[in-house]
Amino acid sequence: MLKTYTYANLATEDIEKLVLRNSDPNLSIQSTVNEIIEEVRQQGDSALVQYAAKFDQVQLDQLYLEKDEIEELAMTISREQQRALEIAFQNIHKFHSVQTKRERVVETMPGVKCWREIRPIEKVGLYIPGGSAVLPSTLLMLGVPARIAGCKQIVVCSPPQKNGKINGFVAYCLLLLKIDRIYLVGGAQAVAAMAFGTSTIPKVDKIFGPGNQFVTKAKSTIQSLTNVSIDMPAGPSEVLVIADETANPAYVAADLLAQAEHGADSQAILVATSADIVDQVIKELASQIAVLPRQEIASMAIDNSYAVIVKDLREAMQFSNLYAPEHLILEIDSWQTITSLILNAGSVFLGHLTPESAGDYASGTNHTLPTSGYARSYSGVSVDSFVKKITFQSISEEGIQQIGSTVEILAELEGLHAHKNAVTIRKK
Amino acid sequence: MLKTYTYANLATEDIEKLVLRNSDPNLSIQSTVNEIIEEVRQQGDSALVQYAAKFDQVQLDQLYLEKDEIEELAMTISREQQRALEIAFQNIHKFHSVQTKRERVVETMPGVKCWREIRPIEKVGLYIPGGSAVLPSTLLMLGVPARIAGCKQIVVCSPPQKNGKINGFVAYCLLLLKIDRIYLVGGAQAVAAMAFGTSTIPKVDKIFGPGNQFVTKAKSTIQSLTNVSIDMPAGPSEVLVIADETANPAYVAADLLAQAEHGADSQAILVATSADIVDQVIKELASQIAVLPRQEIASMAIDNSYAVIVKDLREAMQFSNLYAPEHLILEIDSWQTITSLILNAGSVFLGHLTPESAGDYASGTNHTLPTSGYARSYSGVSVDSFVKKITFQSISEEGIQQIGSTVEILAELEGLHAHKNAVTIRKK
Repeated sequence: MLKTYTYANLATEDIEKLVLRNSDPNLSIQSTVNEIIEEVRQQGDSALVQYAAKFDQVQLDQLYLEKDEIEELAMTISREQQRALEIAFQNIHKFHSVQTKRERVVETMPGVKCWREIRPIEKVGLYIPGGSAVLPSTLLMLGVPARIAGCKQIVVCSPPQKNGKINGFVAYCLLLLKIDRIYLVGGAQAVAAMAFGTSTIPKVDKIFGPGNQFVTKAKSTIQSLTNVSIDMPAGPSEVLVIADETANPAYVAADLLAQAEHGADSQAILVATSADIVDQVIKELASQIAVLPRQEIASMAIDNSYAVIVKDLREAMQFSNLYAPEHLILEIDSWQTITSLILNAGSVFLGHLTPESAGDYASGTNHTLPTSGYARSYSGVSVDSFVKKITFQSISEEGIQQIGSTVEILAELEGLHAHKNAVTIRKK
Repeated sequence: MLKTYTYANLATEDIEKLVLRNSDPNLSIQSTVNEIIEEVRQQGDSALVQYAAKFDQVQLDQLYLEKDEIEELAMTISREQQRALEIAFQNIHKFHSVQTKRERVVETMPGVKCWREIRPIEKVGLYIPGGSAVLPSTLLMLGVPARIAGCKQIVVCSPPQKNGKINGFVAYCLLLLKIDRIYLVGGAQAVAAMAFGTSTIPKVDKIFGPGNQFVTKAKSTIQSLTNVSIDMPAGPSEVLVIADETANPAYVAADLLAQAEHGADSQAILVATSADIVDQVIKELASQIAVLPRQEIASMAIDNSYAVIVKDLREAMQFSNLYAPEHLILEIDSWQTITSLILNAGSVFLGHLTPESAGDYASGTNHTLPTSGYARSYSGVSVDSFVKKITFQSISEEGIQQIGSTVEILAELEGLHAHKNAVTIRKK
């Protein structure tokens, strides 16, 4: 069950160890991934067909499905399910659509005008995991900001089911996003195909999406091999729940288990202001876990997790900032007073009635978030992730006179005379 | 001299080859860098002292300079030079200070409030190249947005001069930025020190800055080895100039040479609407290059570059977008009509009186920009690069009733029952 530590008793090195994520330098994964990438780069489509036979147990005649088939599949799900996906789509769209703002032109000196303009990344690749965990929500989380950004080409790859199709939920999301084609390619081979392009699959500029260890390793490998970029490095999912005496132990336990059911390597950290709270949550964990279908996975993840007892909320935030959780839940009455202390987190859930699962699916925020401590320097996916901001400047005759000598002096002191000359020649 | 192609005669594969940057997979660099990283990780400060002796030919008693010494060095430069650095500082500050905006709270459903808040990356490392090319401008370009973002700890590393000091220009920039300490560490060892931390050098969350091949390779290596992130992948600098019959060939040549003097591997691409323009620019290149101190470097870079003749500005922009230049200069009268066609570029210079060197130093825009085609998916450095945007949400009693069943349905269809339960338990 949940290991428990008392913050006051922990030395700096203990804390450093606690906030360190399990890193599994599985070298066999890297060599498999390298092999797959090389095969796809050299053999293209035929490698993809072979991997589908090998990994997905399906013989594909065609590497994609088109609109009519997508529509047909989308109609196999219930109206209630369609409606739930529509609401999620709308909320995600509403939240993300405030994220692009035109910035004003700044005249830094008379006649020197500078500004930034937003341009979509032209070609993006979205990887949607399939197999045991089918994640239509991920397609919405990546597809909606890509659409708002205005990306010209949105390439979606997802592993085929054994019947050579995709599931109806994913199909319905494609309809909502007005994406007319989905490529039936999964795993590291999908990442390689989007990075290098094949006869069928277009090469993209940036690849997004979660996946298993092979997908993750393939993304980091193509990031260093090519000039295709990726959304962010990925690790197992994690939550840190801060609870004080106002918390409902049943809610806290439910949130920890929602994290734990993701995978045995997930972490669900409890930071509580008393040992009593921890005890109550542990009791709730035991009773709630007993009825979960993914009980076995969840209990392995709980064994991989821990609780920390702190003296107050300030200390709780101190630990949380050191951990830099992907998800942070504040199950406290007084959350308004401490949000300003939050420095490192991916997404934050405030108060007793705000479970992480709301944000995972439907509240509107993005669920593609930095894990493994990357919340110290990365943001989650947003419209920002699908655009570039290009700087522009325009200098008038007055401007070149105003700024000219400054540039000449600075170019000279850096020993770059042609830089200087480009100004001098225009000042005349 | 400048090789010339005609766009209409180029096949798709020719264009693909032309827009491809020289990639030099120098394996000996990787193994040297790996060795340096490992030494610094294991030996810390003593490795840094040894590398200073080996690479910078200086025996350091102390790995940093502090305020009083920085002030003293800053006073060794002329008042005119100080003033030029001040103006650059002010313009950069003015331009970057409009880049952080509070976003509004979005109520995606009644009782479901979502928003983003900006938090600085706490600890950032700035690498400032030294040695032959001392780049105080780079310190301003990285230091100003770090200050505006509100980063708590700004670690600056730069290689020591042979006297164990830094140059006065860098010192004066440190004063302007109110940074009280500079670490006398250069090369791959500086990157490793900031990534792992030593007794003297603090570990940071993100590393910024240009450098030679060793620095660049060290950055990409620590990005894959650790959870320290980097600003962007780096390659040789490049410019693409679009010129029509309104262009002044002398200005165009001056801009191409300003790029070419950076290094033999720099690219200076000319895209012109007639062969006549290319001829005139080539003549100007010959006469201007003859008087440049860095003539040899510049002429190697020009040999490494080319001109493309296009039939009109639309075709010019087509090629430019395929190339995705770090710097794009439009030496045309009618730039207003084609800026909307610009899709891929780092920074754009508009009209005949806007040389790249204005933006390199003093107009206010950032000069740390995506090279090697990364402008397809990366933006240049800005305040955005020094912050995270954290999503927040708060759900009320009304909100959980509104959103509850949607989350339950979606969790159920993904087979995640504990996710569903975290909502169900709160709806009761």
